[in-house]
Amino acid sequence: MSHYDSLLEKVRELDDLNKAAALLSWDREVNMPRGGAAERIAQMTTLSSLIHRMSTSDEFGGLIEDAAAELDGAAYDSNEASLIRLLRRNYADARKLPDEFVARSSAVSGQAREAWVQARTASDFAIFRPWLEQVVGLCQEMAELYGYEDEKYDALLDKYELGMKTAEVRAIFSDLKAELVPLREAIDRSPVKIDDSLLHQPYDVERQKAFARTVAEAIGYDFNRGHLGTVIHPFATSLSRNDARITTRWYPDFLCPSLFGTLHECGHAMYEQGTAAELARTPLARGTSLGIHESQSRMMENIVGRSRGFWHAHFPALQALFPEALGGHTAEAFYRAINKTQPSFIRVEADELTYNFHIILRFELEQAMLNGDLAVADLPAAWNEKMRELLGVTPPDDSQGCLQDVHWSRPGFGYFPTYALGNLYAAQFFETATAADPAILAELAEGRTTALLAWLRENIHRHGRKFTPGELVRRVTGQPLGHAAFMRYATAKFGELYEL
Amino acid sequence: MSHYDSLLEKVRELDDLNKAAALLSWDREVNMPRGGAAERIAQMTTLSSLIHRMSTSDEFGGLIEDAAAELDGAAYDSNEASLIRLLRRNYADARKLPDEFVARSSAVSGQAREAWVQARTASDFAIFRPWLEQVVGLCQEMAELYGYEDEKYDALLDKYELGMKTAEVRAIFSDLKAELVPLREAIDRSPVKIDDSLLHQPYDVERQKAFARTVAEAIGYDFNRGHLGTVIHPFATSLSRNDARITTRWYPDFLCPSLFGTLHECGHAMYEQGTAAELARTPLARGTSLGIHESQSRMMENIVGRSRGFWHAHFPALQALFPEALGGHTAEAFYRAINKTQPSFIRVEADELTYNFHIILRFELEQAMLNGDLAVADLPAAWNEKMRELLGVTPPDDSQGCLQDVHWSRPGFGYFPTYALGNLYAAQFFETATAADPAILAELAEGRTTALLAWLRENIHRHGRKFTPGELVRRVTGQPLGHAAFMRYATAKFGELYEL
Repeated sequence: MSHYDSLLEKVRELDDLNKAAALLSWDREVNMPRGGAAERIAQMTTLSSLIHRMSTSDEFGGLIEDAAAELDGAAYDSNEASLIRLLRRNYADARKLPDEFVARSSAVSGQAREAWVQARTASDFAIFRPWLEQVVGLCQEMAELYGYEDEKYDALLDKYELGMKTAEVRAIFSDLKAELVPLREAIDRSPVKIDDSLLHQPYDVERQKAFARTVAEAIGYDFNRGHLGTVIHPFATSLSRNDARITTRWYPDFLCPSLFGTLHECGHAMYEQGTAAELARTPLARGTSLGIHESQSRMMENIVGRSRGFWHAHFPALQALFPEALGGHTAEAFYRAINKTQPSFIRVEADELTYNFHIILRFELEQAMLNGDLAVADLPAAWNEKMRELLGVTPPDDSQGCLQDVHWSRPGFGYFPTYALGNLYAAQFFETATAADPAILAELAEGRTTALLAWLRENIHRHGRKFTPGELVRRVTGQPLGHAAFMRYATAKFGELYEL
Repeated sequence: MSHYDSLLEKVRELDDLNKAAALLSWDREVNMPRGGAAERIAQMTTLSSLIHRMSTSDEFGGLIEDAAAELDGAAYDSNEASLIRLLRRNYADARKLPDEFVARSSAVSGQAREAWVQARTASDFAIFRPWLEQVVGLCQEMAELYGYEDEKYDALLDKYELGMKTAEVRAIFSDLKAELVPLREAIDRSPVKIDDSLLHQPYDVERQKAFARTVAEAIGYDFNRGHLGTVIHPFATSLSRNDARITTRWYPDFLCPSLFGTLHECGHAMYEQGTAAELARTPLARGTSLGIHESQSRMMENIVGRSRGFWHAHFPALQALFPEALGGHTAEAFYRAINKTQPSFIRVEADELTYNFHIILRFELEQAMLNGDLAVADLPAAWNEKMRELLGVTPPDDSQGCLQDVHWSRPGFGYFPTYALGNLYAAQFFETATAADPAILAELAEGRTTALLAWLRENIHRHGRKFTPGELVRRVTGQPLGHAAFMRYATAKFGELYEL
């Protein structure tokens, strides 16, 4: 047996265990009865400790290096060389965090989460403040443990968007802001007002479920290799490329969460379903970064799922399912309603265009706190100031301001920017795709995505994690990530809608 | 840290991993898309190999013996001494099967199962015969590997019903047969004919689901620590005492499978829910044997769930849910319909009384094949001969005869008898319980089981696997297992129904 085969055997074993851990986690959200929580935490902790021990062992490090030596000279984009690169990075990263730090970080996160729930409920930042201070401390410590060349935030961002630098994101967001703020202001001034009340009517949940399956299949999600579950906070989980699951929530009087949530999670899951079979049971068989993953979900949710063509094709079926709610409306009215844009306080409820501002705000505040330029005590005031600058509105209280997200109850700075990067990647990929294959737009005008999905499979999905996001975007679009494609897309779409 | 604490730490880790494996298995039946099968098998194999390696390691054996030495003199029924006993037995058993045998056995089972599906579909025993010969060979090999004192079958039976001897089961079944055959013949001759056609009508599945939850809660199944899923072949799974799940199947035109299947699985899951909290995350926190487990499911399904009192109390609610099917019927008619008994070919469709014959038949044939007294080629003829002797009927073909069960596609001889032992344990426990607490029967006459469940919790459930089934039945009922309580129960119930 070659060194590489020995390594592969171990890698597959670890991947299987990681998938068992993923199932424990998925099941907790979808099926587990409330009473089972304590034992489930124990099961998850045991499995993740075991995985951590195995994947940071000297033995595993030796297997990687033996295989690397054996494969010296393999082509950069071969599966073998790509796997070695990824394993080396993961191994080095995992060894940088001492067990003591991981345990402490996990304990603080648990308590900080409880405090956050209380603080948000009471809209009282003082309850959360001491915990956020600890979380910021953990982020600072983590940045030092991982190490960085230019600035602290790089060390954290790199864990979610491998190889991307803070300076690069800063420049892109700065360009984006410079054009997006004027666009938002122009929309505010437009005499066109969109009425979206048709979305807020009684919609029978069982019929929503049926329609969610219909649109999921319409965009190419494969239910023979997938599963749709019900949860409170939707997400996608991959237990293998042949078992990539989505979850959705259902509101009886609001259509959007189930509809666009399903399309969003399908985008994630279709990425996983599209990874090459030959990468199975290795860490290469996943989306390459959170930002690229988000580009797939946002593309299906927004570029496809909020397009005129898609709804001119699918609205009649929706209307037939909900004749009372939609019988008197046109596909065009529906298209306009789902694309209404207006500043709001809550990130997760924000529309396609203003969503980016919520992310830019968090990106800037995370850096300020991490670098010590903003004291945690001053966060509420800084938050509201940025809301006015970017969105022109002031949250009425902190629960609708700096207390709205759970994310800061754990040391996960660097995660937020990937949400907006996803929007930008999506637009840039889509522009490249439609230039390469005119069938994509022609199909989309009829509500179909076969050509688009084929392009995504060939250019993005099949590679899994073989390339970093930076490598992938250059390889696919010929350029580094920028804001321009998104602005072209947004200006055309919203310019037409709001008659700018 | 004491040796016992070190052992406990390892035992808990292993238990957590076993529960992760149980979830992979549960999820495969309940949620997994068809496409995910291959990767799921890999995940299950990896986890079970890892568990096997850890639980048969010299290190683990050393931990057990160090703790045993430390605890020398602990009371027999203490948790500590009970855990050591169980771990020693499991460890010794697990070390007796070489990895090569386990792998070969698993490979043969996989192929034999495929052959069995084909053979049953075609009703062609010749397709299955060579595989059954291999399975019998594996059973013989396994018996030698485990070892035995009196007869081969002991070695296998012991794995499902710890400490019980084949001779003991043979004697009990012989006594049972001697009284049960005449009872069945008397019923055949009775002029009373029960009409059960009311059970075979359209029953809306969503309403069946609602009612299944109602009766599950009525008998004491705790949904805050449980979950009801849909499958093709129902079973119960415990991921902890606080997450003990049931599954059910739903037929749109037959009420019994969902109703009595749910009560049956609830009996299993309530046993798991009732194990003492202090046993959690150890192998003691489970039902002690398959036979005792089956006593709990059969008690809820039959002794409680097919009792007159239960249905006089719950029939009105069922009738209100299904006015078209049941509006014209009385609770008494329903009670009679669900207790109709008649010889039939298929075990899983057999009634409470004739079910036992199906098991006695398999028990006798397994021994004959294991001991070489019956050639596999002669199985179909031997099967049909025993059907005539015990049930007075001859299967029209092998798919309704010796090909009906999946069990013999794996080397699991010794499993079948536990089904009938469960019926006998159930009657013996129930007789003891009602003698100890008159409230049990008084409540049951009103459809309630609070007192019965309290008795089961105290006398059976909380002990988990601390005692062998033989120890438990003596401890609880003062006697070894026998056929008499079941015959008293059956004679009274069916004597009244059939006016014997």
